[in-house]
Amino acid sequence: MVDGLAALLAEVRFDAGGLIPAIAQQYNSGEVLTLAWMNRDALAATLESGRVTYWSRARQRLWRKGETSGQTQRLVELRLDCDGDAVLLLVDQTGVACHTGRRSCFFRAVREGGLVVIADPLISPEKLYPGGTAP
Amino acid sequence: MVDGLAALLAEVRFDAGGLIPAIAQQYNSGEVLTLAWMNRDALAATLESGRVTYWSRARQRLWRKGETSGQTQRLVELRLDCDGDAVLLLVDQTGVACHTGRRSCFFRAVREGGLVVIADPLISPEKLYPGGTAP
Repeated sequence: MVDGLAALLAEVRFDAGGLIPAIAQQYNSGEVLTLAWMNRDALAATLESGRVTYWSRARQRLWRKGETSGQTQRLVELRLDCDGDAVLLLVDQTGVACHTGRRSCFFRAVREGGLVVIADPLISPEKLYPGGTAP
Repeated sequence: MVDGLAALLAEVRFDAGGLIPAIAQQYNSGEVLTLAWMNRDALAATLESGRVTYWSRARQRLWRKGETSGQTQRLVELRLDCDGDAVLLLVDQTGVACHTGRRSCFFRAVREGGLVVIADPLISPEKLYPGGTAP
């Protein structure tokens, strides 16, 4: 995948902080799981290992998805948009993508004049992060 | 939708520039069409009109999707993620979402050691923007 990485990096337009937004989508259901951020090293680690790795803006370090919770994302395909400033990751998500224990992070919807929770946790956050808080 | 807007704005965390990334997904196929940006006024215009409106970072103004090309997005549902810093728009896309004439902006994939174009235009850019360049 190293040549793929070089070809990708030649077309990627990182933002002023060296980051690009990455959408993770379950490859075989189409469900949008999360939006996170990647830098050059995260793109490289993801393509080289096949395990999705983001850049944690909160912790300012690489974050291999699932490293604490076990809820990993296997990369199926990485796509780049027309102007090179967003990537779409087709992934196979183990368990849940959201730190709240829900499959997708997008579990609140504008409905009925308010913001409504439309999905329940499948796993309790305490089981995902037995030692402390979510990353 | 005004109450929905107030509930949404109470939970949204805009970035330092007052923007939030918005993923547009075709509601009945799951196809991820584009990633664009919204500010407070774009969220309000989208919820009030049911027609997706973004903030154009290039032009620094509100951009009602399809205003030039006719390729509009009707909002089906707006979802917010767990930490309030990304939205998912379930939309019904008229025609194509990408200024290149392709259905989705994510038409390049890392494959076979390179970056490969995996979708053809359905409409020529000249037909989308007869008077000039794409927005």
